[in-house]
Amino acid sequence: MDASQNLVDAYEEDGFVLIAEAFSAPEIACLKQRLPMLAAEEGPKRVLEKDGVSVRSVYGPHLTDPLFDRLTRDRRLLDPVRRIMGVDTYVHQTKINFKKGFGGDVWKWHQDYIFWLKEDGVPKPRLITAAVYLDEVTEFNGPLFIIPGSHKESVIDVDADDTALSSYRESPTWISNLTAELKYSLPKEGVARLIQRRGVVAPRGAAGSVLLFHPNVVHASPSNILPFDRVLVLITYNSVDNKPLESHARRPEFLCGREFSAVSPDPLGSRLIA
Amino acid sequence: MDASQNLVDAYEEDGFVLIAEAFSAPEIACLKQRLPMLAAEEGPKRVLEKDGVSVRSVYGPHLTDPLFDRLTRDRRLLDPVRRIMGVDTYVHQTKINFKKGFGGDVWKWHQDYIFWLKEDGVPKPRLITAAVYLDEVTEFNGPLFIIPGSHKESVIDVDADDTALSSYRESPTWISNLTAELKYSLPKEGVARLIQRRGVVAPRGAAGSVLLFHPNVVHASPSNILPFDRVLVLITYNSVDNKPLESHARRPEFLCGREFSAVSPDPLGSRLIA
Repeated sequence: MDASQNLVDAYEEDGFVLIAEAFSAPEIACLKQRLPMLAAEEGPKRVLEKDGVSVRSVYGPHLTDPLFDRLTRDRRLLDPVRRIMGVDTYVHQTKINFKKGFGGDVWKWHQDYIFWLKEDGVPKPRLITAAVYLDEVTEFNGPLFIIPGSHKESVIDVDADDTALSSYRESPTWISNLTAELKYSLPKEGVARLIQRRGVVAPRGAAGSVLLFHPNVVHASPSNILPFDRVLVLITYNSVDNKPLESHARRPEFLCGREFSAVSPDPLGSRLIA
Repeated sequence: MDASQNLVDAYEEDGFVLIAEAFSAPEIACLKQRLPMLAAEEGPKRVLEKDGVSVRSVYGPHLTDPLFDRLTRDRRLLDPVRRIMGVDTYVHQTKINFKKGFGGDVWKWHQDYIFWLKEDGVPKPRLITAAVYLDEVTEFNGPLFIIPGSHKESVIDVDADDTALSSYRESPTWISNLTAELKYSLPKEGVARLIQRRGVVAPRGAAGSVLLFHPNVVHASPSNILPFDRVLVLITYNSVDNKPLESHARRPEFLCGREFSAVSPDPLGSRLIA
């Protein structure tokens, strides 16, 4: 069985697969150089931690930064995504999660797809997220915890948590999806049942590794109490035949991409820097 | 070299040592049976998480519960403590840290001894804490993170954080030592320097394991985002020749023990339940 078939099988079985060190140290260093500028830009694309100071996430970096745009077109992401999905994809959403040292807070247990279903009207969970590790991920720096195989549960319907909105009453409703208090997080008992049946893992990897994961896989991450940041770039690809419903309310482009044509691979192929 | 000399050497080198499964499953089950009652008792010995609901710690369980008293006298704790310290000890403090599932919050980076020095006037860091694991400790449930060898740094003096008191203005000052906002936590840069030099570890172990650690070893723990509690019992033994200074302000007995005679071993020896 060839390596890429193993990758597809692992993804289908577990709902995720890790590709170790897909990007080189110099490539990762170039991406990291852009972070201070991207984090400094105020506006709705930037979300702060509850401390009101640390940057938690920046949405849509590929819309303004050419290197992040090129990253979305890199064959080391596109080829395995194409292999798993079987069809072409476009970029639904990108985001940088900073998980700041001494400040990066918890992400509660959730599935991603319920947000894209309910907020954007994406008809099916035919999306894949590629998480590019900009720092080594260890057991100590707030790694993603994943319940393997939980994508087979399909969408676990949960009531929208409107208290998640309480501190943001003045803001448009979509802001609630971007805060630490997730609108659709899973209840304790449901997560307990899933973990008792399926266990939990935390895929570690060197900087430059890529985690591909299913939009229905149940995941979370604890606080990062180390004094060093642990940054991920998340790129969510959606199948070209799975566009959001026209009838659905529209979130901003940086949350719900509207460039629906298939991503064209970077002419550099598999080299992020020339 | 005999096993107990290895234990002493490891403790002196790293500032901690793990004794795997010192207590049996039935013994741990008996201790766990007492938890709901101990956690239900309102009063100053009980500290809640910032959520105002989950129990974070209960101090002094050995003062009221006979099984916890017997635990402090068990030879499986007293013998290695005696071996390491070289002198007899008494109980300075006991506490249960609940680290509740879905609610157990961060303990910031700190050394324990600075609290006992500044708040109680304990002259020297000649104490040992025994942490008895009432649940399995894994990489997922908010384990203790320890910087090995950091006890060799001696006391790292930090300014008392009086903002840690802000939510507790009505309370006696000692309450600030009991809250999530530790009065003497270490700054980011200092922790970074230590970790760059010495690394970080998280001693995992089955329920019933015992972690002995030095009062100057730098440690912390992240949030517990699993839906299951991770409970530790912490017993701090102080050398009989290291009593708190008489001249020092007095915290309550459940924080600063005043039964200064050497702990008398339980006549049951090494069996917590008959």
